Amino acid sequence: MKRVLAVGTRAHREFVDITERVQEVVRASGVREGQCLLFVPHTTAGLTINENDDPDVPRDMLTGLTDLLGDESRFRHYEGNAGAHLLSSLLGVSLTIFIAEGELALGRWQAIYFGEFDGPRQREVWVRIVGED
Amino acid sequence: MKRVLAVGTRAHREFVDITERVQEVVRASGVREGQCLLFVPHTTAGLTINENDDPDVPRDMLTGLTDLLGDESRFRHYEGNAGAHLLSSLLGVSLTIFIAEGELALGRWQAIYFGEFDGPRQREVWVRIVGED
Amino acid sequence: MKRVLAVGTRAHREFVDITERVQEVVRASGVREGQCLLFVPHTTAGLTINENDDPDVPRDMLTGLTDLLGDESRFRHYEGNAGAHLLSSLLGVSLTIFIAEGELALGRWQAIYFGEFDGPRQREVWVRIVGED
Repeated sequence: MKRVLAVGTRAHREFVDITERVQEVVRASGVREGQCLLFVPHTTAGLTINENDDPDVPRDMLTGLTDLLGDESRFRHYEGNAGAHLLSSLLGVSLTIFIAEGELALGRWQAIYFGEFDGPRQREVWVRIVGED
Repeated sequence: MKRVLAVGTRAHREFVDITERVQEVVRASGVREGQCLLFVPHTTAGLTINENDDPDVPRDMLTGLTDLLGDESRFRHYEGNAGAHLLSSLLGVSLTIFIAEGELALGRWQAIYFGEFDGPRQREVWVRIVGED
Repeated sequence: MKRVLAVGTRAHREFVDITERVQEVVRASGVREGQCLLFVPHTTAGLTINENDDPDVPRDMLTGLTDLLGDESRFRHYEGNAGAHLLSSLLGVSLTIFIAEGELALGRWQAIYFGEFDGPRQREVWVRIVGED
């Protein structure tokens, strides 16, 4: 089963917590045991799993990631967003999460974040549910 | 089939080679062809695959990763471990490894490392074996 | 179904676009819906998905990644390629891509890159096709 989630961002670089929306897809699938696969079909965005208890965590992650890029004016890509492409590759565009007892099997403090690094944009996250026999 | 491995660390930041323990889960499953999925349900830890022949490789990786963080006092997260969260996101918390002829299909020099970046801690690694028909 | 792609590099650090070769494996498999799993069995190489429209994007990514390493002479690994190992871990050695309607389901601008960070080398990329029922 495949589903497409529309995710919009409002800032240049932003993390959006999509955990609940993915959880809804898992529940609607009726799969009790298996995997939930996520894929972002964009090249300036990515996916990661991290803490969502303190909003300073995704903020600090954006700070730390942006600082990794250094002076972005040294990049040559004509669109000027090479740094966003690099952050997409550093986080990756796919995730595999277990499904157990009909729910996403995440740790207590884990949330699924969609990160956009060249927004604001209207984007997609693809979700696929694979059940185990 | 799902199994939970308990992994303890003794240092603040440390890589632990868990290859043999995952291999045992694969062998016990009886699956000949398929995938071994790993997932870390923590937000200051991660998984990676790299060389285990020279112990300087994981040491150098810790040096390189820590240096990526820069001055961690600029982060605002009240627990003071935002750098550990960022390293978790840079490495990722999930891995997919092929199973071939009943064994983990790794390259000759590859080992599976659990990395903890805010230890010492007692942690879990979840393992799921998916057989192909 | 598993296939091995041979990928050669000619520079010390280089990204090679392998999208079409993976697409051929997918088409040859006859699988209409499922997943394409990729794995690199080497410790100084990795896989990533990013834009292939402007050749400056992979070039800028190499610049940005190399600059992350800083002064590599501080690493202790006797082979002198610890930086390449770190880049392998930052990108990762596995990818999961959806198959839809018999084709790789990539975004419009997405390509699959094999990255070698201690070349030139002759390397392998393992491909596994998993069909959904």
